[in-house]
Amino acid sequence: MSVTAINTRNQFKGSVVSINRGPVVSEVEIETPAGIISAVITTSSIDRLKLRIGDSALALFKATEVLIAKIGDQAA
Amino acid sequence: MSVTAINTRNQFKGSVVSINRGPVVSEVEIETPAGIISAVITTSSIDRLKLRIGDSALALFKATEVLIAKIGDQAA
Amino acid sequence: MSVTAINTRNQFKGSVVSINRGPVVSEVEIETPAGIISAVITTSSIDRLKLRIGDSALALFKATEVLIAKIGDQAA
Amino acid sequence: MSVTAINTRNQFKGSVVSINRGPVVSEVEIETPAGIISAVITTSSIDRLKLRIGDSALALFKATEVLIAKIGDQAA
Amino acid sequence: MSVTAINTRNQFKGSVVSINRGPVVSEVEIETPAGIISAVITTSSIDRLKLRIGDSALALFKATEVLIAKIGDQAA
Amino acid sequence: MSVTAINTRNQFKGSVVSINRGPVVSEVEIETPAGIISAVITTSSIDRLKLRIGDSALALFKATEVLIAKIGDQAA
Repeated sequence: MSVTAINTRNQFKGSVVSINRGPVVSEVEIETPAGIISAVITTSSIDRLKLRIGDSALALFKATEVLIAKIGDQAA
Repeated sequence: MSVTAINTRNQFKGSVVSINRGPVVSEVEIETPAGIISAVITTSSIDRLKLRIGDSALALFKATEVLIAKIGDQAA
Repeated sequence: MSVTAINTRNQFKGSVVSINRGPVVSEVEIETPAGIISAVITTSSIDRLKLRIGDSALALFKATEVLIAKIGDQAA
Repeated sequence: MSVTAINTRNQFKGSVVSINRGPVVSEVEIETPAGIISAVITTSSIDRLKLRIGDSALALFKATEVLIAKIGDQAA
Repeated sequence: MSVTAINTRNQFKGSVVSINRGPVVSEVEIETPAGIISAVITTSSIDRLKLRIGDSALALFKATEVLIAKIGDQAA
Repeated sequence: MSVTAINTRNQFKGSVVSINRGPVVSEVEIETPAGIISAVITTSSIDRLKLRIGDSALALFKATEVLIAKIGDQAA
């Protein structure tokens, strides 16, 4: 079995630059060309993935999870 | 009242490059330096925000929504 | 740059009444006219926002995150 | 079998005031003491629940789904 | 590049048994040993994945998205 | 008041097989016929529900939270 494709278009490749381990969940920061993406995943997942600083990783999120804020040009 | 800051670090600024309107929800694509971010929001929100192609916008998502996939170097 | 509007209609204003800090994520309770809304956000976000008890805050969530349960009138 | 309790504290009781039906998902508005809560659920769920305008309903969402924005007092 | 592992433990393999296409989002049902899992994804994703009835597929969701309800034994 | 039905079709019954308590959130594993489902909920919810190992429980998640990955038959 191999995963050939995941449905979401929101996939950003980068490398793991920090892991803040907690007892249940941990925060992982992935440096992408777009800037840092922060993810909170279970600490047991980090151990299962053997995720370490410097690893290449993909940050994925569904389009339904994204909010949009409008940025104003309130100059005049 | 003004919103001065939103908690999530995952905020990517860009401009709206496409809006696929549906009867209840619509898909909005925001072009950011990191690539396209796709968002599904309600069509009523698009109308309330008066969101149009070319607008500056911020795509926001919580760290708890992000999945991480490990990318293998399975060369040898 | 200023955020002029966020897409979701689900925005409830209130004040922070408790913060349960954890090493990675924290639980924040916001008292709104509708009752307490509980949010789990990263502890680093709390520090970045300098969020403290008594602060005015907005709790936001997307419509796609809301479940609906029907309440029965099972009288007879 | 009966559901006796659901984990999330974020439960707001109200009544259904509008249903915007779409082919796949629909938007349901629930009027609560806190104001309108908007939910996007599948249209098949609406049919399964036989949800109609006027019904009593509970809007539920997890604490992990809530974002917090700080509201500024930028008076001076 | 190949995805070698995704962080979430909640991965259920099955086959696509129905696709209800909408203009923006579609509902996909995956039959797994555990029963049907229903997913709402963008219709553009379905086209990108060339997802069809009968395909093998994996349904994935984060642990942070799962609610727990207690089931009562209220017999006596 | 009694909850008679919850909108999501994704409801899996099982029993609690492990609880990894953290200061703010905890990870609960529910053994279902489909395998283990992992949930991260607040520790305060666990206490409110009096959730213990061996309890019958329902794991629920919205269809909008599910990602789909295609599994390839890349044999030839």
